[in-house]
Amino acid sequence: MPSSPHRALTGLSHPFRVTKGTRFRLEDFSTDDTRGLELKDESDGLLEDCSVVMADLQERLYAQDRWSVLLIFQAMDAAGKDGTIKHVMTGLNPRGCEVNSFKSPTTEELDHDFLWRTTRLLPRRGHIGIFNRSYYEEMLVVRVHPEILGHQQLPPSLVTPRIWRERFTDVVNYETYLSRQGVIIRKFFLYLSKEEQRRRFMERLAEPDKHWKFSLGDLPEREYFDDYLRAYDDVIRHTATAQAPWYVVPADHKWFTRLVVASAVIEAIESVRPTFPTVDPATRRKLKAAELQLKNEPQTSRLARRGRGRRQ
Amino acid sequence: MPSSPHRALTGLSHPFRVTKGTRFRLEDFSTDDTRGLELKDESDGLLEDCSVVMADLQERLYAQDRWSVLLIFQAMDAAGKDGTIKHVMTGLNPRGCEVNSFKSPTTEELDHDFLWRTTRLLPRRGHIGIFNRSYYEEMLVVRVHPEILGHQQLPPSLVTPRIWRERFTDVVNYETYLSRQGVIIRKFFLYLSKEEQRRRFMERLAEPDKHWKFSLGDLPEREYFDDYLRAYDDVIRHTATAQAPWYVVPADHKWFTRLVVASAVIEAIESVRPTFPTVDPATRRKLKAAELQLKNEPQTSRLARRGRGRRQ
Repeated sequence: MPSSPHRALTGLSHPFRVTKGTRFRLEDFSTDDTRGLELKDESDGLLEDCSVVMADLQERLYAQDRWSVLLIFQAMDAAGKDGTIKHVMTGLNPRGCEVNSFKSPTTEELDHDFLWRTTRLLPRRGHIGIFNRSYYEEMLVVRVHPEILGHQQLPPSLVTPRIWRERFTDVVNYETYLSRQGVIIRKFFLYLSKEEQRRRFMERLAEPDKHWKFSLGDLPEREYFDDYLRAYDDVIRHTATAQAPWYVVPADHKWFTRLVVASAVIEAIESVRPTFPTVDPATRRKLKAAELQLKNEPQTSRLARRGRGRRQ
Repeated sequence: MPSSPHRALTGLSHPFRVTKGTRFRLEDFSTDDTRGLELKDESDGLLEDCSVVMADLQERLYAQDRWSVLLIFQAMDAAGKDGTIKHVMTGLNPRGCEVNSFKSPTTEELDHDFLWRTTRLLPRRGHIGIFNRSYYEEMLVVRVHPEILGHQQLPPSLVTPRIWRERFTDVVNYETYLSRQGVIIRKFFLYLSKEEQRRRFMERLAEPDKHWKFSLGDLPEREYFDDYLRAYDDVIRHTATAQAPWYVVPADHKWFTRLVVASAVIEAIESVRPTFPTVDPATRRKLKAAELQLKNEPQTSRLARRGRGRRQ
């Protein structure tokens, strides 16, 4: 089985991985960390190498049809979720890879428990599912703007001060359950500085081709930057587990973000050592016979060849 | 708010309710219990009274649009699941009530975690959802026939002797989560004796109109009767909770089964006291104005009346 395409990428994601939240503090991480590496110019090439490894792993995953992979991306605006998904995942066979983006829930979705909308879109066995935002929004945007809770049709008696703790517990239990069902879960928080967000927003506003990426709601939301950081800090502390770790990925340098994510995804799939299904001796004999039969099949008659020609 | 239509039904389900599994033993219950009541001849009338109460509760539930109700029915063949659903639930407005029956999972369903297929069909807020069989089959039929596990596409490393305990834990966590989201869960095991099953099978075989209810697979399955009882015993012990209680409903007498279930369902909905949404004073004034406007609207002109007539 191939492994990481470049020594520099081996273990690159480890310093950013949180498998136990208890002692987690966001302030122990930094947004512009690059582990002292100077790989910006090489990063495109490295990502291409990663693609090849990932495509092979995906093929095995698909053929084996047992495990599925769920990659969750959470971040503040302009942190690079879309770009990371594009640059790291392009190269995968779309047959076995789906991206779902979650915006404000619909009326039908609000008429169900908050995990319902994402559960319906979980990847099938053998597939890689990517969530651009996820059920974590229920503990992030809803926590920063608790007035949203009032529109969520919850019975008022269930909206208590304990609600965030309950959601943390419920999400940890849910992810534990999913991992027992064969879902490999990895969660990425792209950690951006407020200054770098300002720079990227200005870039979007200066280039007409990037206007569509800027929403007029982005600026008022920026005022809650610190509240969001506190919400992320609490979410990661309460929901980072060995079976569903968080990665706090420095996001000020796009090339670094992408390399860290690529390296973490490769490791995640390699962790279950996906292999092509093996065939038992009896079936192998039948396959051999089929091969022989095809080899010895009489030559196609002139008529059939003519018929085929006509259809083409 | 109306309450149980007959004194005999008040609390009728309590002796059969299990809210804490720890000391549960199926052998403490009996299949032909009727609490000494002789209500067979009156039971149709009583169920009709229940229907009226239930329909009113359903209307409030629907108007309030906060809570949903999930009723799970599990039992061995011929225990009366279909008949109970028919006799207890007919009279509800189908707009807010759906029945889903779960048979062998499809290929697409097996490609997901075992709760996926039922989660997609959970009732919306304001609705009553009825599951005829459910995710509990994963700890019942699959436990009695563990070879089924081999066809479920689970990664082999996750199929360990701990699997049943893990499923119990996962299901309890799932139901706890759902109840925090506003789902009122009640689970019914219709407890039938092996002798009564034999009698009902013979009845089905004697009447051509009932042949469709008999499957040739029913008889071999009957040989596992005691294994199923042991599986139910263990399932109820591990998954009966205050927020999602089991009812062990004696099923040898159909009339009694139905009265117990009706009484439990009424109590379940009453427990959250669903009320019609109230209107704030400002809206009330607007409604009053609308009423006045309609009242003072000029009489329909002759032309409009003619036009209407022509269209009819």
